[in-house]
Amino acid sequence: MAIKLYELAGKDTSLPFSPHCWKARMALAHKGLEFEVEPVGFTQIAEIENGGQTIVPLIRHGEKLVSDSFNIALYLKAAYPDRGPGLFKGDDSIALTRFVESWCQTQIHPWAIKWAAMDIYNMLGEEDQAYFRTKREAAFGVTLEELVANREASIPQLKQLLMPLRLLLKHHPYIGGKDPIFADYIPFGALQWLRICSGLTMIEKDDPVMAWFERMLDLYDGQGRSVPEAKHSS
Amino acid sequence: MAIKLYELAGKDTSLPFSPHCWKARMALAHKGLEFEVEPVGFTQIAEIENGGQTIVPLIRHGEKLVSDSFNIALYLKAAYPDRGPGLFKGDDSIALTRFVESWCQTQIHPWAIKWAAMDIYNMLGEEDQAYFRTKREAAFGVTLEELVANREASIPQLKQLLMPLRLLLKHHPYIGGKDPIFADYIPFGALQWLRICSGLTMIEKDDPVMAWFERMLDLYDGQGRSVPEAKHSS
Repeated sequence: MAIKLYELAGKDTSLPFSPHCWKARMALAHKGLEFEVEPVGFTQIAEIENGGQTIVPLIRHGEKLVSDSFNIALYLKAAYPDRGPGLFKGDDSIALTRFVESWCQTQIHPWAIKWAAMDIYNMLGEEDQAYFRTKREAAFGVTLEELVANREASIPQLKQLLMPLRLLLKHHPYIGGKDPIFADYIPFGALQWLRICSGLTMIEKDDPVMAWFERMLDLYDGQGRSVPEAKHSS
Repeated sequence: MAIKLYELAGKDTSLPFSPHCWKARMALAHKGLEFEVEPVGFTQIAEIENGGQTIVPLIRHGEKLVSDSFNIALYLKAAYPDRGPGLFKGDDSIALTRFVESWCQTQIHPWAIKWAAMDIYNMLGEEDQAYFRTKREAAFGVTLEELVANREASIPQLKQLLMPLRLLLKHHPYIGGKDPIFADYIPFGALQWLRICSGLTMIEKDDPVMAWFERMLDLYDGQGRSVPEAKHSS
């Protein structure tokens, strides 16, 4: 029985863009599991699975419902201990991977949302646009238009924020070492979010982070590459 | 046969302060190994072990000489696979730990040197002072005095830079999970450097990072606490 993955989507449901949903999708692909995707808008989350849900990604696996990308990865590790490569390999890998998540959520995501806010907004249906604008404008205390107004000036900051990943890549091809693990899907999700919503014009083509990201896009028959990069950016 | 650890020291050789040497010292203590410490100044490194060495920490173990804290941890893992708790536990832990090192060296160390530069300078002997001043002033393009002049203004930046560690600590007591691993000794080294050179006045007492740091100071019969915190700061 295939797993169902509820993923955030905009007007064009063929363009899933949520960084968190990409982490879950890559974790499923990593384990070689069959899954079907059900796209949902921000304002539809409360209605799925007879209500009571507040976030995506959410998976249904038989009787089980599991939300949150890290929880989904832990669930897949427990449900399929011997299937495919490990998402977390050692006794210390779950906590170490949580460090990578903590880094990405506190350093890269705040940068990314300030870059992509209007691009995301333009991808959404009307009802989701209103929801997204209200929520984000309350969080940042400025309009979405003001948030992104001078975004080009923040490019050197992203270069500095990505230094931990860039330096790691001098030693290993993946955060998992020779092969990718769940920790790799975390910054992959962040860059995939920027790629699909805005296009990756903010990272230099010859940055080693891009070589790693291209390898990540190739994984699992090009799972990540199956959704195209944004053609232009607001 | 005890391992000899060459550690950076200033005029008062009872106050080893190098973050890199603290990583090596904690790795040795983690493995429950006996070691003797040999303090060296910056300008004495070239003379130790009949010359040819350029950095500390350096360990001599029988016929073997190993320098660089990460290399020393890898050496101890290989030399003592079954002794004490693992410094790296899974197949993916070495690369994940390299990510923590890459984060610390590119995000925390640049902040720390700009805070502690004059405090370090004041701990050194005359010859090392001249070496340190020349090297650091060339690197930063300003005098040491200018580098630290407005350091209090950078405190909010440190708070932001430590967010990955602070958020991880909501999930686990150590970066290694239930117990510390080599990855924990990496930011420990950075904060121990600040503690011994400057005093930890720049981090709020109730920051969860401080609770973790206090636990780290307690490890191995208070190895880290055996060197006192700086009483005052320049």
